[in-house]
Amino acid sequence: MTEWLPTLITKTPGEGSDLAVKLSRVAVKLTQPDAETRDRLRPVYAENADSLIAASQVVATHFATVAAANDYWRAAR
Amino acid sequence: MTEWLPTLITKTPGEGSDLAVKLSRVAVKLTQPDAETRDRLRPVYAENADSLIAASQVVATHFATVAAANDYWRAAR
Amino acid sequence: MTEWLPTLITKTPGEGSDLAVKLSRVAVKLTQPDAETRDRLRPVYAENADSLIAASQVVATHFATVAAANDYWRAAR
Amino acid sequence: MTEWLPTLITKTPGEGSDLAVKLSRVAVKLTQPDAETRDRLRPVYAENADSLIAASQVVATHFATVAAANDYWRAAR
Amino acid sequence: MTEWLPTLITKTPGEGSDLAVKLSRVAVKLTQPDAETRDRLRPVYAENADSLIAASQVVATHFATVAAANDYWRAAR
Amino acid sequence: MTEWLPTLITKTPGEGSDLAVKLSRVAVKLTQPDAETRDRLRPVYAENADSLIAASQVVATHFATVAAANDYWRAAR
Repeated sequence: MTEWLPTLITKTPGEGSDLAVKLSRVAVKLTQPDAETRDRLRPVYAENADSLIAASQVVATHFATVAAANDYWRAAR
Repeated sequence: MTEWLPTLITKTPGEGSDLAVKLSRVAVKLTQPDAETRDRLRPVYAENADSLIAASQVVATHFATVAAANDYWRAAR
Repeated sequence: MTEWLPTLITKTPGEGSDLAVKLSRVAVKLTQPDAETRDRLRPVYAENADSLIAASQVVATHFATVAAANDYWRAAR
Repeated sequence: MTEWLPTLITKTPGEGSDLAVKLSRVAVKLTQPDAETRDRLRPVYAENADSLIAASQVVATHFATVAAANDYWRAAR
Repeated sequence: MTEWLPTLITKTPGEGSDLAVKLSRVAVKLTQPDAETRDRLRPVYAENADSLIAASQVVATHFATVAAANDYWRAAR
Repeated sequence: MTEWLPTLITKTPGEGSDLAVKLSRVAVKLTQPDAETRDRLRPVYAENADSLIAASQVVATHFATVAAANDYWRAAR
């Protein structure tokens, strides 16, 4: 499970946002390793407003980490 | 999905707040890509007090990131 | 919407706390722009213990940002 | 409302913890200014396990801010 | 209540984790000072999956603070 | 309980993610020390969408700490 994420460095904030989503999905995967169960649960939260907000809170937390790792892409300005 | 966010730098804290809202909406979009479903869910949480608070927590988390990226707009003082 | 917040700098931690509350309200306003709906929802969460705690969590998150912006008001000691 | 908090500096981590609790209460007070309503709500969350945990999450967030303000009391070691 | 926590410095990350748990319990204690009530509530959340997760979120927040205080125990490597 | 975590340093972000999951489980263990109860609760949250999201929020918080400890694995680039 350790080869999937060689670096937190991305070219742009947009790519950093994609990585934050990926990190969020991995955390779910590590808690519920069964793909079938995850597939069953996905529509449950993707169509529930409060679950969507909670999921985007996890993404926001990971985005903060990725942004810090990239020194907020200041050099790319 | 990576071209939409070239920088986290904004001129003022107010613009930073707008960007934090934009980042929050993108995180929802990445979790629920279907625009029709999102349109259906929006009134659900926009008219529910607890959902609104939860949504503003996500915004607060992104604002912290954007503020750090801009060194808290200290130079703009 | 960008002129309302020219700076995150305040004189004291107490004023910083006021600003954190203001930031929290703005985040709600950006999610639910309709003033009438917000007025209708306010008593719902202001008289519910769990909603109040959730709202104060948002304030705490913004206060952390404002405190960092002000270098924790150490110079004002 | 701005004179009540002249500094975030405390002598020990223990006093910092007390300040974090004070900051949490102020945030609630700013959201629900009516003392009578707050008095009515207090037993509701103080005797509910999940509310207590949520309240202590707010305290933890403020404690992080106060700890950073005090440079984690390293000099006091 | 201020003598119980003279320092945030610990020897190892493991001891830091213990301290984070202690900080979480203190926050609950400060919100609900009555020991009997706390004893009554403990089994409620210790046997509820969502409460346990919420409690471990508080611990995670405190662990972040303790880890920063100890400069992430890098010197102990 | 203090020997299990000698360091927060990992080789890659992927290993850091594994460590974040481990830290999350330890926090649950410290709150509910009875292994049998934990085993009983695990399927409850692992098959509930909202619980899974909440659990991954705890992991995200720990990942932020581990990432900072490793200076975001920038040297490993």
